[in-house]
Amino acid sequence: MLRQKLLNWDLTLIAILFSTTLLAQTNHNQPYAEIARQITRTALAEGQAYRLLAELTSCGPRLSGSPQAAAAMEWARQTMTKLGFNNVRLQEVMVPHWVRGPLEEAAIINSTTMGTVPLSVCALGGSIATPEVGIVAEVVEVKSFEELKAPGSKAAGKIIFFNRPMDASKINTFEAYGGAVNQRGSGAIEAAKAGGVAALVRSMTTRLDDVPHTGGMGYQDGVPKIPAAAISTIDANLLNQILAQEKSVRVRVKLTCQTLPDAPSANVLGEITGAEKPEEIIVVGGHLDSWDKGTGAHDDGAGCVQAIEVLRLLKALNLKPKRTIRAVMFINEENGLRGGIEYARRAAESNAKHIVAIEADRGGFAPRGFSVEADSARFARLAGWAYLFKEIGADNIFRGGSGADISVLVRQGVPGIGLVPEAQRYFDFHHSDNDVIAGVNERELNLGAAAMAILCYVIAQEGL
Amino acid sequence: MLRQKLLNWDLTLIAILFSTTLLAQTNHNQPYAEIARQITRTALAEGQAYRLLAELTSCGPRLSGSPQAAAAMEWARQTMTKLGFNNVRLQEVMVPHWVRGPLEEAAIINSTTMGTVPLSVCALGGSIATPEVGIVAEVVEVKSFEELKAPGSKAAGKIIFFNRPMDASKINTFEAYGGAVNQRGSGAIEAAKAGGVAALVRSMTTRLDDVPHTGGMGYQDGVPKIPAAAISTIDANLLNQILAQEKSVRVRVKLTCQTLPDAPSANVLGEITGAEKPEEIIVVGGHLDSWDKGTGAHDDGAGCVQAIEVLRLLKALNLKPKRTIRAVMFINEENGLRGGIEYARRAAESNAKHIVAIEADRGGFAPRGFSVEADSARFARLAGWAYLFKEIGADNIFRGGSGADISVLVRQGVPGIGLVPEAQRYFDFHHSDNDVIAGVNERELNLGAAAMAILCYVIAQEGL
Repeated sequence: MLRQKLLNWDLTLIAILFSTTLLAQTNHNQPYAEIARQITRTALAEGQAYRLLAELTSCGPRLSGSPQAAAAMEWARQTMTKLGFNNVRLQEVMVPHWVRGPLEEAAIINSTTMGTVPLSVCALGGSIATPEVGIVAEVVEVKSFEELKAPGSKAAGKIIFFNRPMDASKINTFEAYGGAVNQRGSGAIEAAKAGGVAALVRSMTTRLDDVPHTGGMGYQDGVPKIPAAAISTIDANLLNQILAQEKSVRVRVKLTCQTLPDAPSANVLGEITGAEKPEEIIVVGGHLDSWDKGTGAHDDGAGCVQAIEVLRLLKALNLKPKRTIRAVMFINEENGLRGGIEYARRAAESNAKHIVAIEADRGGFAPRGFSVEADSARFARLAGWAYLFKEIGADNIFRGGSGADISVLVRQGVPGIGLVPEAQRYFDFHHSDNDVIAGVNERELNLGAAAMAILCYVIAQEGL
Repeated sequence: MLRQKLLNWDLTLIAILFSTTLLAQTNHNQPYAEIARQITRTALAEGQAYRLLAELTSCGPRLSGSPQAAAAMEWARQTMTKLGFNNVRLQEVMVPHWVRGPLEEAAIINSTTMGTVPLSVCALGGSIATPEVGIVAEVVEVKSFEELKAPGSKAAGKIIFFNRPMDASKINTFEAYGGAVNQRGSGAIEAAKAGGVAALVRSMTTRLDDVPHTGGMGYQDGVPKIPAAAISTIDANLLNQILAQEKSVRVRVKLTCQTLPDAPSANVLGEITGAEKPEEIIVVGGHLDSWDKGTGAHDDGAGCVQAIEVLRLLKALNLKPKRTIRAVMFINEENGLRGGIEYARRAAESNAKHIVAIEADRGGFAPRGFSVEADSARFARLAGWAYLFKEIGADNIFRGGSGADISVLVRQGVPGIGLVPEAQRYFDFHHSDNDVIAGVNERELNLGAAAMAILCYVIAQEGL
């Protein structure tokens, strides 16, 4: 019978009707609520962010100084021009130019139980190469820098294996990242201080897979430079197990990366000139460069196309912002921040009046809110607009860091806001071959763009 | 220099520290806050839900009456027994037994521009087969049942193509689904009333891809039964385009599905017997059956393993609930709801005292809150516990439908609660080959289990 056969999806419908009645009432009689809804609907139904992301990521991985980064800059310029943005232009800046090189490999070479065991490895960004024949040495595993400094540390002449995992028990994955990433950033320095000859670092992810995650690392004046590479979490666990069972485990690592002279590059800018106060600028941006693994779909292709989409949506809806909204695709966030520094330098030099800078650089996931660096009055103002984001579940407005690219502006006194998406999946992708467009959901990406568009438009009309 | 090279991830760290300070203060001095935190940490760091889901989905697709569904029942029984749950048992019930059959295909056979165009197709669950040679007929496209009923409708003798998409502009994807799914559920009835010979339905997803999505459909006494199938959204768009350009477009469709006699099956139950009021029961469940496309990872393998994980987590943390918490893996949600009906029937028959029923059946995504069917006093009580879910972002407690399997209990007066996860991605997977474990993120799945475990434990201690 019909009644019985259709029962279960009828029930689903009843459930839906119940729940949406509530939502529909939320924004009643609130300023900008109807515009917010229009922006969201348009973003979901006719959004272009995903198509733009497909185009951008088809440029390839966009490490600063690479031909692919140059392609992305030209893509951004052409795209914003075609979309009819005002003052589309490049803002030139020299960037570091590190290249991975054709060969990188690592293997355990003398396991008594397993023989030679190849490891999934990639050089960390900024690392020097190994000698051409590679480095072969015994491995010492540590979980902290303190272990290296302890008396009796056997690091001298060894390959230091940094194997403190991101703490999976943390709800905030960025906090888990923060608790482990010093191994990647400073591991080579601390290993070298203890006499180590190379650093191998467990990849910065809580996911167990066979994909190494790269990322920035540094050297310190006066401390020998040694090569540094990441290995996958599966191989980190394997190496840990073999080390627990065998006396002397030797690894060979070969890296052919190198740092070339700084290369010319640029931020790419485009805007909707404000109709009433064009001199007051709202920056909305992401970073155009990525690491050279994957194609930087979440990090930070998503933020770039969302910034473009903010302006496109407002134009599509024929909304005329009173103040200027400027999309900025910063260059070189990943290994130098030169784009953000240069943008802020020119802003200060020209006395440009930036009333807020907004960055999306935490992946193209469903938006959950905004992290704000601003004085109390401005924070209260922003928090007062939370109702505009409730319907899309992005109404968590809290005090916190905004974004790396806009951090120099923020230090110059400009309020900074970071889009905060759902973060549980981010480090599955981050800085690795996993970070391709297949990992991005179109609706989630569109909702993030909608959240930023609503925020930009309200600030453009009301100031901050 | 170190300072400059490390600048960007240092900034990330600063951002993290700012934002987590706030979070850490949220639950201060609130009852159960520390237990909630322990549950969450344990779920994230040592959760078993993903491993259980890998085991469950390795049984294969679990359509009611299939050997794979039987395997899943045995898996659930063994798993809960091994985990030391009390009163692990099967609750037998007869279920509908529809099988897809070895062959299903569809193709446009006479496009003047494209010739023969195969379509990605799958029978809808419950459909009859076509004659062995298939059905060949002209296609008429409609967007609504009204078009079929309109005077001059040319449906007689035709294949009716229902092509009203889910409305992508809706924020709530379940609402978008609700606005389109009558085409799948009743399309064959309405097409047959108008003289149609078969129904082809656009798949219920906003995603554009080449994967057909199945799902339940029904017939009506006194109306001829005609075969019904879904085609992928890409092929729906293609068919639409060809129909717009060509006068007469003919499609051949062959389906070999059939409905067999009802088959024996069962709900699977296991519990932690309450330490003080064992007769008061909290049901937490999902449905063990799935469609026969994909392996039902999100729908509803996720809900099943989360229900098991609720009990496992409480045992792992040595928490002794005062009331009984019973994990129920319902059978036959997808095409009959026989498990839910039988569970409720026995509950009424035995005068069992169910104080609440909680279901997870909206995918294994990051939890955002709970949808509640209860009287005002109980709703207020539940809403008062929202602070326990704030840290994991699941504190949106609102009035709405709970879950299909528990709906009969709810009609008997038991308060019902549905876990509400982030829903933007759900219909990418739903009822299709896409619904496999690769689409499930371990941390998101764990957080959903944690949310349910916290809720169950608080209600077990406090009542409702």
